[in-house]
Amino acid sequence: MDKQNIIYGKNSIIEAILSGERQINKILISKSTHCDSKTQEIINLARSKGIIFQFVPKEKFTLYSEYPHQGVIAQISPVKYKDLDEFLDDNNEFKSVVILDGVEDPHNVGAIIRTAVCAGYDAVILPSRRNAQVNATVEKSSAGAINHIAIIQVNSLSSTIEKLKKHNYWIIAADAQGKDNYFDIDYCNMSFALIMGGEETGVSKNNLNKSDFIVKIPMLRNFNSLNVSNAASAIIYESVRQKLQTKKDSV
Amino acid sequence: MDKQNIIYGKNSIIEAILSGERQINKILISKSTHCDSKTQEIINLARSKGIIFQFVPKEKFTLYSEYPHQGVIAQISPVKYKDLDEFLDDNNEFKSVVILDGVEDPHNVGAIIRTAVCAGYDAVILPSRRNAQVNATVEKSSAGAINHIAIIQVNSLSSTIEKLKKHNYWIIAADAQGKDNYFDIDYCNMSFALIMGGEETGVSKNNLNKSDFIVKIPMLRNFNSLNVSNAASAIIYESVRQKLQTKKDSV
Repeated sequence: MDKQNIIYGKNSIIEAILSGERQINKILISKSTHCDSKTQEIINLARSKGIIFQFVPKEKFTLYSEYPHQGVIAQISPVKYKDLDEFLDDNNEFKSVVILDGVEDPHNVGAIIRTAVCAGYDAVILPSRRNAQVNATVEKSSAGAINHIAIIQVNSLSSTIEKLKKHNYWIIAADAQGKDNYFDIDYCNMSFALIMGGEETGVSKNNLNKSDFIVKIPMLRNFNSLNVSNAASAIIYESVRQKLQTKKDSV
Repeated sequence: MDKQNIIYGKNSIIEAILSGERQINKILISKSTHCDSKTQEIINLARSKGIIFQFVPKEKFTLYSEYPHQGVIAQISPVKYKDLDEFLDDNNEFKSVVILDGVEDPHNVGAIIRTAVCAGYDAVILPSRRNAQVNATVEKSSAGAINHIAIIQVNSLSSTIEKLKKHNYWIIAADAQGKDNYFDIDYCNMSFALIMGGEETGVSKNNLNKSDFIVKIPMLRNFNSLNVSNAASAIIYESVRQKLQTKKDSV
């Protein structure tokens, strides 16, 4: 069995079934699992969509012991990555995207994707190296959100940023040394890409140099910094606030 | 050896030494650990502060195998909880606190404490039951932030909210069914307590009923909700934005 293409977490599995974005090959349910309302919902959904599900002895799950799977696992098709050029060609309105530059903890990657989906962003771009890839932990941490947004994997962030600029995206990097507070720039009426850097390393120097804005999150105590997914949430939702409040003001 | 009162994570240990808030009884370093610059910093700090450190065979660490400890563990005094009444008696300026109402994942508790510290909040209040307690995982997820803010453990959230109200705190609960968007209320010139609810359950009905405001985070896609620590970050930093921008406007 392929350990890569699985998802665990009852909510994530329900999300994956409902979104219809991924082909679910089989759902395994441990015979000794507690059959709560979420498990029952998975069974009902699987029945209604014609997805195979099996009750298996719990020994079958030893292969997945690294995951807190709660006795339910779905074997699925790999994440469908969206092509960058295809995404950029669809150019008929202002877009918001997040770029992950070296975010290593899959829980953070998942949480950022989840926030991006809730905030109505259009894509999350991640490099194929030096960043956690979209695996079962990312999918679980995203609570299934990865099926609700374009995930774009690129070989070079540097050339991706160039491409985004050619398509009139403004590039905003988050960095503790930034000049502006993140809420002092205007996120409305433009396409933009927000770059969030790795937990230890931050946004790479090369990408900082390419950015139009470098924004910081003010620290009100003498303490190092926010977790990267919490930093992303503050900035992403500031862009939402500006859009919704501006809309209201102009009515 | 006491498994409760340890911290792991090189950054957390460095923070704990520097903050001076906790008595560190001993630091254990695995003989087979990679002695990188962070480990060296811990050793230097321990030397300068007179903290005992020992190089021990890696077998000593099997007791802590549930933690990703990277071969370094500090045995410390328990978290010093602050007394609620003492905290409330110190009443000479507007205060901001976070109340956790059934947040179960210690990573979320740690991340929220970390955000509260960065945002200059004054306390985090958590109930002694039905919520993750401050343990090694919380401390690690907070990156050591728990030593930079008052942590208040209470037996009853309900009576705590009553007490806060008597001390002129406004009570703001975060809930998906809230009437106002979180950015449409005013966080300035008042003391307030923000209640964040559990991952599955949200803020309890009883506490919602006691709240002066129930705020929601707008969802721009048809997707369930944010991770609780990311939701907290959006709201907490909105209060920071309002305070800093208002201050600027009034200069």
